[in-house]
Amino acid sequence: MVQILRLPVAIMLISACVWAFDSVPTPSTPAPNLLPLPASMRAYSGGLKLDGSFTVATTRASDARLERAIQRFQQRLGAKIGTAVQFGLVSDANAAKMTVQCGAASPNVPELGEDESYSLEVDARHTTLTANRVIGALRGLETLLQLVEADGNGYLLRAVSIQDKPRFTWRGLMIDVSRHWQPVAVVKRNIDGLATVKMNVFHWHLTDDQGFRIESKRFPKLQEMGSDGLYYTQEQVREVIEYAADRGVRIVPEFDMPGHTTSWFVGYPALASGPGPYQIERKFGIFDPAMDPTREETYTFLDGFLGEMAQLFPDQYVHIGGDENNGKQWLANPQIREFMTEHQLRDTAALQAYFTGRVLKILQKHGKKMAGWDEILTADLPKDVVVQSWRGTQSLADGAKQGYSGILSQPYYFDHMAPADFFYTNDPLPANSDITPEQAARVLGGESCAWSEFLSPENIDSRIWPRNAALAERLWSQRDVNNVADMYRRLERVSVGLEQDGLTHISAKNRMLRQVTGMPVPEAVSILGEVASPFGIADRQKIRQENALTPLTRMSDTVIPDPPFRTHFADLVVQLLSDAPAFSAQQAVLSRQFQQWQTLGQSFAKVEATAPILSDSEAKVRDLEQLGSAGLQALQYLQTKTGPPPEWRSASLGLIDHAEMPDDSVLRFPWLFSYRALILAAANVDGLKATTPERWKEQVMREAAAQEPKAKYTW
Amino acid sequence: MVQILRLPVAIMLISACVWAFDSVPTPSTPAPNLLPLPASMRAYSGGLKLDGSFTVATTRASDARLERAIQRFQQRLGAKIGTAVQFGLVSDANAAKMTVQCGAASPNVPELGEDESYSLEVDARHTTLTANRVIGALRGLETLLQLVEADGNGYLLRAVSIQDKPRFTWRGLMIDVSRHWQPVAVVKRNIDGLATVKMNVFHWHLTDDQGFRIESKRFPKLQEMGSDGLYYTQEQVREVIEYAADRGVRIVPEFDMPGHTTSWFVGYPALASGPGPYQIERKFGIFDPAMDPTREETYTFLDGFLGEMAQLFPDQYVHIGGDENNGKQWLANPQIREFMTEHQLRDTAALQAYFTGRVLKILQKHGKKMAGWDEILTADLPKDVVVQSWRGTQSLADGAKQGYSGILSQPYYFDHMAPADFFYTNDPLPANSDITPEQAARVLGGESCAWSEFLSPENIDSRIWPRNAALAERLWSQRDVNNVADMYRRLERVSVGLEQDGLTHISAKNRMLRQVTGMPVPEAVSILGEVASPFGIADRQKIRQENALTPLTRMSDTVIPDPPFRTHFADLVVQLLSDAPAFSAQQAVLSRQFQQWQTLGQSFAKVEATAPILSDSEAKVRDLEQLGSAGLQALQYLQTKTGPPPEWRSASLGLIDHAEMPDDSVLRFPWLFSYRALILAAANVDGLKATTPERWKEQVMREAAAQEPKAKYTW
Repeated sequence: MVQILRLPVAIMLISACVWAFDSVPTPSTPAPNLLPLPASMRAYSGGLKLDGSFTVATTRASDARLERAIQRFQQRLGAKIGTAVQFGLVSDANAAKMTVQCGAASPNVPELGEDESYSLEVDARHTTLTANRVIGALRGLETLLQLVEADGNGYLLRAVSIQDKPRFTWRGLMIDVSRHWQPVAVVKRNIDGLATVKMNVFHWHLTDDQGFRIESKRFPKLQEMGSDGLYYTQEQVREVIEYAADRGVRIVPEFDMPGHTTSWFVGYPALASGPGPYQIERKFGIFDPAMDPTREETYTFLDGFLGEMAQLFPDQYVHIGGDENNGKQWLANPQIREFMTEHQLRDTAALQAYFTGRVLKILQKHGKKMAGWDEILTADLPKDVVVQSWRGTQSLADGAKQGYSGILSQPYYFDHMAPADFFYTNDPLPANSDITPEQAARVLGGESCAWSEFLSPENIDSRIWPRNAALAERLWSQRDVNNVADMYRRLERVSVGLEQDGLTHISAKNRMLRQVTGMPVPEAVSILGEVASPFGIADRQKIRQENALTPLTRMSDTVIPDPPFRTHFADLVVQLLSDAPAFSAQQAVLSRQFQQWQTLGQSFAKVEATAPILSDSEAKVRDLEQLGSAGLQALQYLQTKTGPPPEWRSASLGLIDHAEMPDDSVLRFPWLFSYRALILAAANVDGLKATTPERWKEQVMREAAAQEPKAKYTW
Repeated sequence: MVQILRLPVAIMLISACVWAFDSVPTPSTPAPNLLPLPASMRAYSGGLKLDGSFTVATTRASDARLERAIQRFQQRLGAKIGTAVQFGLVSDANAAKMTVQCGAASPNVPELGEDESYSLEVDARHTTLTANRVIGALRGLETLLQLVEADGNGYLLRAVSIQDKPRFTWRGLMIDVSRHWQPVAVVKRNIDGLATVKMNVFHWHLTDDQGFRIESKRFPKLQEMGSDGLYYTQEQVREVIEYAADRGVRIVPEFDMPGHTTSWFVGYPALASGPGPYQIERKFGIFDPAMDPTREETYTFLDGFLGEMAQLFPDQYVHIGGDENNGKQWLANPQIREFMTEHQLRDTAALQAYFTGRVLKILQKHGKKMAGWDEILTADLPKDVVVQSWRGTQSLADGAKQGYSGILSQPYYFDHMAPADFFYTNDPLPANSDITPEQAARVLGGESCAWSEFLSPENIDSRIWPRNAALAERLWSQRDVNNVADMYRRLERVSVGLEQDGLTHISAKNRMLRQVTGMPVPEAVSILGEVASPFGIADRQKIRQENALTPLTRMSDTVIPDPPFRTHFADLVVQLLSDAPAFSAQQAVLSRQFQQWQTLGQSFAKVEATAPILSDSEAKVRDLEQLGSAGLQALQYLQTKTGPPPEWRSASLGLIDHAEMPDDSVLRFPWLFSYRALILAAANVDGLKATTPERWKEQVMREAAAQEPKAKYTW
């Protein structure tokens, strides 16, 4: 429920309030730029003036974490308005401009299922943030920062009345730090991002074939031999845990096993099912090495290691992976085959279930619950296990029916390069789901996954953000908050705000484009960089031979998924076609754009001569040139209302088909849908005589949609 | 000596080399973009092809540090060319494309005065890097990365023959992390920057009135009460030291005393000369609190603390500051006055000399030498003390005459916002210096200083870089390497390269401009951001009341010193005036620029309505509008060769005078010299009839220079 109230109602709601006189609402008062949208909000025009006199007091419960959060809030608020607000708390709550009223402290380290609800009342005189627990207050502080607006007299906190709480209790982001190492700074700034959009779990995928990224004091050869020296010390881990806890974010560590474990075996080959020796895996994919589930020494080791980790990580849950063990090493080992026969384990899945059961006992001994990927569900597991579904909604629902709690992940894989609306429109609990409310309650939420085959510290943020914010709203807000256009409108603002605390998802592109050429970005490179996005991992791996040592500095690593140009270009085309039969709206803008493309080749070639790293993009630039020419022709046909010859239509559609194809550049033009609509409009311009402009446009858009190749954004 | 050789000579030099046949040099072959320029270089056209087959071997001495450096080199090389080169060393030196020949390992932690020389031979078949010591090889690897170029067939290492060594042995950067906290990541990326331009000292100003930034285990209240929780743990310090050592950079810690010590006294008030209690200082300036030099307990404490630090920091030198103690607290304390009388110390300078002498003994006991600011020279000190001169070249020379070693700092203060050429043209040993060669040898080099009154982690890099690279060349290259235009040409390339390893000096501006408005940067803000630079600290502190809590997010904190627009605009004006009497060169470009300025106000006002943080810049935008109008008129007068009425001249010069004045925005237009030349040219256009265009232009430029207000870039 989001409302912008006009004056009479506002007066009724906060009668006798000075605010009601100060602020005359206008019909143009827009809704606040909140993301995620709260469960319930009334917004008014005007608000509380923000300047150096802004003071904060707490009443009722408080703790050191809340006080630190308020100080960060004050610094971020000051940074936004360019003036320091009073730092720290004032003692006189009656005189303070803002009071924070918490019912009770929360656990110092956040836990699954805490009460994150809060409410906010902002008027021209005062702001009240109320929460049952401190963690709810943390969420409310983030909302307040999104309520900073301006009127003719300066900055203000927008007047609102908000009651808010999350729809799902597990709202996470997973980062794989194994395939490509990500320093502490990357982790921290992403945790800041999570807090900003009210997500509450950072799932740390710490080990995999390509690197063992955490210090074990008991088994130091794990990191010493399995990480190329790139791992987190335990002190750093504690620092990150504390940092996340301060922001209301849980840290769930993952130690993937029994497969995805090559890096463990470099230092401890006896853990493996095959003879070794082992080296850190440089390639990507599914590999044979797996822990030997038949030797007691394996469990002794895991008891020691997981015991150490259980001490280090305070969260209830430890994630043990469990995915993609191909069983080959097991079947190749006669002793393991013998063990399977002996224990009547008829296949490797059954053997893995045995392994999972043993590991579960170890975790329980150390006071932990288990989380794992879909595959762990083959074991006879207690109901407090959390299953993370990479197989999708149906697998998640099936688990819930069996009584297991689960979280959804597969549609939220960043590496398929889906646009934000794909994340936004995939609900963990689709409206048409056939599960009961009781089963539905077991769907705890979801997690986006940043698998890091192609993620460097330079480009990782741009693969996660701002798309992750769209998912944040999906997981926090109600199911019926689903207006894609409105989400994109708010996402643009929130995306800029996310860089305030250190994320680099916007700035990275130009920074990397400069590195590509070694100079201030030439226009030709800038144009290509604006219109291209990277193909997803499935296409990329078909085309390129890459591994963990391949530099991630080419155009494909630089351009961003879901670039603003996609929606911008779509707007231009829709406006042009909606202006039938004049076709003058945005005609000039489109024409300039196409002219730029049409002549791109020569200037690009000049840059390429000094920066051969760009040579993989040559074919895409040629595509753009031809799309530019055909686009200009299309505008011409529309202007003159003269249908082109049929060969033009097929030739132009052929250009699009060619441009859709992944090549060595793995650059994609994610706006070809709108471009195709333009071509079809020009090809069908004669049809305008036979129907209304409105119907004609609909017909064109329908045809374009029918021709759009199905994008595949999951495995 | 920098030469580009043509073919015949090249053949003589590397006769019978395949390269001589492969590469046909052309007259346009430019000099490599090296910075700093080497002591001696011959450059040839062509070079060694770079691709995945590029391999490295070491012969003679090697060590783990060299091997890590080679691996980093390989990764950075791969990133530049978009293709992984073979990682690690190959054993067959004869088959390797590159061999590194070191005479001997260097100390694991760098020391003052090491042999940093190296030589490089690159031809079409092979690269040889030779150095007496590993540290010289580190320098040579950086040169190699700057030799990556491209020809029509791909990337290559430019063919060169280089013998290189530094002119000065102490080439440093100081960062003040007290007035504004800078996280480890900021320190590390700046150390990367130092290594890239062959600087070798990071001077860590760890303590000051506004914050005590290092963990003491013996005296934990120092950091616990004196830092707002913002300090480096000893583990982090060790990590930084190791990181720097790997890159051939010394870490010299500074513990400023006896003044600039307020933050020490919050936890340990008994150290102070006044009664206390003390709080962390939030203001900037010179404050009264100073250690009590008369109590033995002070020296017991310092013995404990400096002993602990001497263990932590491996460098020979510990910097004890010593600057700006105003003596007020000493004179206000009767016991201290009594002590002075008793010990025949006639003023506070004498008392400080006593203190310095005591501290020196403590350092010596712990095996360290002393460094300090100018003021320490009042004590009777041994000759191995290093004096850091903030008072300038003369003070440095005076010290050298007395037998003291010294380094120059004052002209290298970043906070005065001088352009890079100011750093570049200030030599620690000016050609006209009257000191003997023996005394000159005591001038060890210099250090730039990043005092952090107005430095946040967001904008600090843009205040240090790329200007620091100009200083790096001043300190490494010979005195006669002093062509400013050529330095700027190379600086542009090196500046882009410096961002590769994490510095943010280029990308920060747009990132911060987005934060200013909360949206993608509007054009009006972008235009202002491009032409403005910040005024220096002297003007800023006169105008604004700011302290350590003031947000650094206004335009003044965002725009960069020495923006490329300054030299760009100067080029445009010179080209226009050199085209007298036609005045057509660049006329159109200038005209478009001035039109943009002329109409800036309205669009800026619209942005300002949503981002009141911009309101301080309103007056500067009005200045730009008027300069735009007058600029257009000037172009008109030049075109028509009709002199304007005399009031136009004075009115236009009046606009410039107004625009020169610092206002609340503290934004400066650093290109007004060129703009004034344009106005004077228009005003004097009639003079063209009386003389040659060349003489006329010289006259105009001379007049502009005469009217230029003297910029003051030092205290």
